[in-house]
Amino acid sequence: MEGIMKTRIPVAVVGATGLAGQQFLAALENHPLFELVALAASSRSAGKRYRDAVRDEQGASRWFADGPLPEAFADLIVQDGAAFDPTTVGLVFSAVDGDTARSLEGKYATTTPVVSTASAYRYEDDVPLVIPPVNPDHVELLSLQQERRGWKGFVAPIPNCTTTGLAVTLAPLVRSFGVELVLMTSLQATSGAGRTPGVPALDVIDNVIPFIPKEEEKVATETRKILGALGASGIIAHPAPVTATCMRVGVTDGHTESVFVRLGQAASKGGVTEALRGFEAPPDVQDLPSAPRRWIEVSDDPYRPQPRLDRESGGGMVTSVGRIREDDALGNGAKYVLVSHNTKMGAAKGAILLAELLHARGRLG
Amino acid sequence: MEGIMKTRIPVAVVGATGLAGQQFLAALENHPLFELVALAASSRSAGKRYRDAVRDEQGASRWFADGPLPEAFADLIVQDGAAFDPTTVGLVFSAVDGDTARSLEGKYATTTPVVSTASAYRYEDDVPLVIPPVNPDHVELLSLQQERRGWKGFVAPIPNCTTTGLAVTLAPLVRSFGVELVLMTSLQATSGAGRTPGVPALDVIDNVIPFIPKEEEKVATETRKILGALGASGIIAHPAPVTATCMRVGVTDGHTESVFVRLGQAASKGGVTEALRGFEAPPDVQDLPSAPRRWIEVSDDPYRPQPRLDRESGGGMVTSVGRIREDDALGNGAKYVLVSHNTKMGAAKGAILLAELLHARGRLG
Amino acid sequence: MEGIMKTRIPVAVVGATGLAGQQFLAALENHPLFELVALAASSRSAGKRYRDAVRDEQGASRWFADGPLPEAFADLIVQDGAAFDPTTVGLVFSAVDGDTARSLEGKYATTTPVVSTASAYRYEDDVPLVIPPVNPDHVELLSLQQERRGWKGFVAPIPNCTTTGLAVTLAPLVRSFGVELVLMTSLQATSGAGRTPGVPALDVIDNVIPFIPKEEEKVATETRKILGALGASGIIAHPAPVTATCMRVGVTDGHTESVFVRLGQAASKGGVTEALRGFEAPPDVQDLPSAPRRWIEVSDDPYRPQPRLDRESGGGMVTSVGRIREDDALGNGAKYVLVSHNTKMGAAKGAILLAELLHARGRLG
Amino acid sequence: MEGIMKTRIPVAVVGATGLAGQQFLAALENHPLFELVALAASSRSAGKRYRDAVRDEQGASRWFADGPLPEAFADLIVQDGAAFDPTTVGLVFSAVDGDTARSLEGKYATTTPVVSTASAYRYEDDVPLVIPPVNPDHVELLSLQQERRGWKGFVAPIPNCTTTGLAVTLAPLVRSFGVELVLMTSLQATSGAGRTPGVPALDVIDNVIPFIPKEEEKVATETRKILGALGASGIIAHPAPVTATCMRVGVTDGHTESVFVRLGQAASKGGVTEALRGFEAPPDVQDLPSAPRRWIEVSDDPYRPQPRLDRESGGGMVTSVGRIREDDALGNGAKYVLVSHNTKMGAAKGAILLAELLHARGRLG
Repeated sequence: MEGIMKTRIPVAVVGATGLAGQQFLAALENHPLFELVALAASSRSAGKRYRDAVRDEQGASRWFADGPLPEAFADLIVQDGAAFDPTTVGLVFSAVDGDTARSLEGKYATTTPVVSTASAYRYEDDVPLVIPPVNPDHVELLSLQQERRGWKGFVAPIPNCTTTGLAVTLAPLVRSFGVELVLMTSLQATSGAGRTPGVPALDVIDNVIPFIPKEEEKVATETRKILGALGASGIIAHPAPVTATCMRVGVTDGHTESVFVRLGQAASKGGVTEALRGFEAPPDVQDLPSAPRRWIEVSDDPYRPQPRLDRESGGGMVTSVGRIREDDALGNGAKYVLVSHNTKMGAAKGAILLAELLHARGRLG
Repeated sequence: MEGIMKTRIPVAVVGATGLAGQQFLAALENHPLFELVALAASSRSAGKRYRDAVRDEQGASRWFADGPLPEAFADLIVQDGAAFDPTTVGLVFSAVDGDTARSLEGKYATTTPVVSTASAYRYEDDVPLVIPPVNPDHVELLSLQQERRGWKGFVAPIPNCTTTGLAVTLAPLVRSFGVELVLMTSLQATSGAGRTPGVPALDVIDNVIPFIPKEEEKVATETRKILGALGASGIIAHPAPVTATCMRVGVTDGHTESVFVRLGQAASKGGVTEALRGFEAPPDVQDLPSAPRRWIEVSDDPYRPQPRLDRESGGGMVTSVGRIREDDALGNGAKYVLVSHNTKMGAAKGAILLAELLHARGRLG
Repeated sequence: MEGIMKTRIPVAVVGATGLAGQQFLAALENHPLFELVALAASSRSAGKRYRDAVRDEQGASRWFADGPLPEAFADLIVQDGAAFDPTTVGLVFSAVDGDTARSLEGKYATTTPVVSTASAYRYEDDVPLVIPPVNPDHVELLSLQQERRGWKGFVAPIPNCTTTGLAVTLAPLVRSFGVELVLMTSLQATSGAGRTPGVPALDVIDNVIPFIPKEEEKVATETRKILGALGASGIIAHPAPVTATCMRVGVTDGHTESVFVRLGQAASKGGVTEALRGFEAPPDVQDLPSAPRRWIEVSDDPYRPQPRLDRESGGGMVTSVGRIREDDALGNGAKYVLVSHNTKMGAAKGAILLAELLHARGRLG
Repeated sequence: MEGIMKTRIPVAVVGATGLAGQQFLAALENHPLFELVALAASSRSAGKRYRDAVRDEQGASRWFADGPLPEAFADLIVQDGAAFDPTTVGLVFSAVDGDTARSLEGKYATTTPVVSTASAYRYEDDVPLVIPPVNPDHVELLSLQQERRGWKGFVAPIPNCTTTGLAVTLAPLVRSFGVELVLMTSLQATSGAGRTPGVPALDVIDNVIPFIPKEEEKVATETRKILGALGASGIIAHPAPVTATCMRVGVTDGHTESVFVRLGQAASKGGVTEALRGFEAPPDVQDLPSAPRRWIEVSDDPYRPQPRLDRESGGGMVTSVGRIREDDALGNGAKYVLVSHNTKMGAAKGAILLAELLHARGRLG
């Protein structure tokens, strides 16, 4: 990251004590644009110093994000999310769970921009679902959202972590060849489910769990929205059907996805490889502080990508692709495997990247 | 199993010391039709008692199949596979590795029936690839094989362990609806790769390996052959394209497969479920000693099948299916998840089942 | 098990929906002495059929014990444990969690015998801690308990699952050589912590957790009580100090323990082996329905015992021992490794074994 | 690391293609004192560019160390270790396997210093076993070695990876309290066994392997030698008996050890903590390029250390300690858990640290 701005934008993290919230803190340490000044969580944590709010009953630390708890944030007093005044900051990062996300985020957004990892608003007509290198122009939909709802702020959610890697890799294929059909099977990491309770160890030792509630519907709907066209009254979903089977495997971080795609025209293995390798974002997205040098890295090694070896690529912001093959079975078909970091590009760091885009495009006031 | 025949057929296991070979021994203990009388392996093991041939340098047992080493076989002297006289038995089970399988099996077959887990002969025109409940009539091709090659015996291979579960579940769909396209992603257990060296622990701890050499080609070719029609000069492959991506995960036994299929006509979730649940083999196959009561078990629990919980169903001979869903994306599409035991139905026990069929159909002299 | 008694004792399982409770149901199917007639759990489950009480919100079965849910029990209506009338049965099996165990078990015991897997009463002076093959005579202490407390029933807890394997293997060493000091490090399976939430997958993937709250104190206190002498007013703890470090590893079932012990007199490796192999319980214990043929199995294979390979030995009732070595460092020292099934011998099946002993010794009325 | 020396010492890595050898390459990139100029391995790899020597038959990279293969070394031509001329370098790092280590290292040492991860020479009277922060003065024994054997070079091995963490943590206890008895149980990572074949996945999925050949003897002998006193004709082993049970668990990197120790005098938990936290090496060791800021980090969190969370501390050079408890059972006893990175401090990076010490103390000519 470049030098830190003279005056950074004060931001809050709501839902700060959970696994996703912790990752916001880890990622906001020394951020050049955003200065974390407020933390909020449920009433149970309210009033505690953050370092104490992430301790268990025995006093042991329940901080699980990379690296130690940033000292700069450890003594911030956790506020009650329900009582938090969003006008004290210029931006709220929300890592709140589905149930309370709807009410809290809507309340904050009346005055303040909200960037969220929750799904509560993802499927609203006037809510864009933006992955900065894929569909940055969809942020324009926020104007409609503000107008319709009479909000000074807005809610800008990021997609589900399983959608992200898929959409990032489909974007260059849509551009180069067109995409007509997508079939995906995911092997998802356990961190996506949080930690308490999260995925029980008994589920993934010597085992695979073939179902993740609501995940397949999210992937199908979100991917088509992200790849869709910005219309006057919302996003026109991309016409290609997307179908998925989502499973859980014994991996800590990094979702692996097996993708079959029917392209709009014939493409060789080399052509698909070139399209993915050559994928670039618009210049202003490329210059965002959290942007990796490349969004997609393609390996020729048939044993890659692997979640343990590739998930941290580009600080967890890169989607790693391998095993690109032509697929005659599908007709103009291609197949490949991707690995995407579900709690970095797919969660907190991805949300911060979106906030950086919103700043670059003048949406943060 | 029912009562033991008065006079059982004397059989040999070649490649007896490896993981697959051991599983033949475990499965042949007290078999009603076959009496294991001879064991063969590489020259390194030749001349040793079997119990000593499966010890390491420190004297520790390297027996890894279920249950203890059957005492009845422990003191058999291991013969050199290259020098073994197949006329001393009525049937040879071959668990030899790819490289030597071609020469050894061909040699044995000049005089003696060979049932093999190796891939050496699978793709020959005059070699059937039989899963007893799916395509028992393909055994008739053995007559052509014997005639063309001038063999008194034959080579009857079983398919790759990853093909087996897929073909078993496609068979009822072919019958009920027709099948036009198959896309499969496998999450394969480590036991399929044997044990020395087998899959290194470093590959599957907190990780997924997205490639298994030659596996995808095997699945595509074998599935279409198994589901194909018996013609005068060989099998006419089923016309539906089959495409697969095969991965390795940290599971001991039991391959999990995510299947997408385009059917020949529309079928509801209930219809697909009924077709799979109702799948039956011909009466003589149903009566084989190793046949489970049902070949396919379908679960309505969305969290099933799971390899650890379902692999041992029916003694490892059942294919467990769940997550049946209609799939509009494909057009007359369906998707489901299956679990199949790769070293039981998919290897030694599957080979014994095939031998039982060959016996029932009068092919063992 | 032998034939079923004409009139079996009606029993209840309280805490029936949890992982430990489920295992009681699995183990009581077709039990020759006990007829399961009542199930109780928290008020949340009360009034539901058992099969529905172990479903999640999506309707998926949360039954996790071996085998399918026994049909004989599936339609029993779950009662509220707080309102359950223990006089309707001859024995209550309690699988209640620590917090409510104290009040519920004490209440039931005023009228009815209670055999419990909970720790609530384990450390009371008038409560014996019995492993049938080790200290069956300690059941006599129940008379004192009934007298002192004015109870018609009693509470008979089993020890912590980590204690069980240790105490079983120390018993023959105490008899043959005396034991002066015990140091143990455990590598514990995840099933010991239940399932919801249980051990999070993130804790044990590519990891070890070096702490299990209260476990080390339990092991030290309980082992000395079990190996202690029955005195007039309670158990006189065995004098040998016991110290433990308890860790969690990524294993589903089966605790592995590394034991160092200073014996009362010099003993060769052969002597220790013989003492462990020769361990026998009194004849009436040996005849209990759940008793395995041998309580301890000793392997000479240096790579055994292993939890995955040995935990199910004797239906999970055997303690498997290996790696017996003399240990000069300790002075008359020995060291060995054991594997014990934490949810069978160490939980529900161990409690049923204790109930069988109580029946044999006339304690069940 | 500080600035790179004007003229670095040219060094070779022998055994460069294995897992340990790869880690030397990863650690020598941009090393301030050593310039890697030559690579050697078995004749099978000789003549190939290094990047090709670490490819498999399919052309896939078998490079497994952290980060990508350093470009600076990728095109070095691998030499045949048996024919390698050690006078072309100022120091040889040997990562050769046990069998050939003895002959090769002895041959090289006639002219050139050798720092080795192999065990071949560890137990010779005139060979020191040095962990720089623990017993740096033992390097003086190299003079005796050179004199006795008539070597211009020498062989300086590092200890076994399991010994390292134990010896590092015992050193401050020896200094502060004296140590009279050590009992240790290890839970070792799979990377210690290399990769081909390494530990089979089947061994550690849902499992523990209770035996690692020769490991326990190595730990006992080496620990006492490292903690011993330098005498005129060799090291006088520390008198405290050391006994270990060594196991393998499903962890990629980082050995966990449960240690019980009887101290020479009573010490409180606070005292032991302070001794470990206060551990410092002599100033010249502290200044070595690979030295971490602290050698031991002590956590008060009862759930630490954990291999996945703590192994990379200080670049893998720190020994993490936690769960410090007084232990009355032992008499002046203490117990704790440690995590040490087996392939960093315990292998290649530890060997480089030793080479840095040899340089600092004028042993590299």
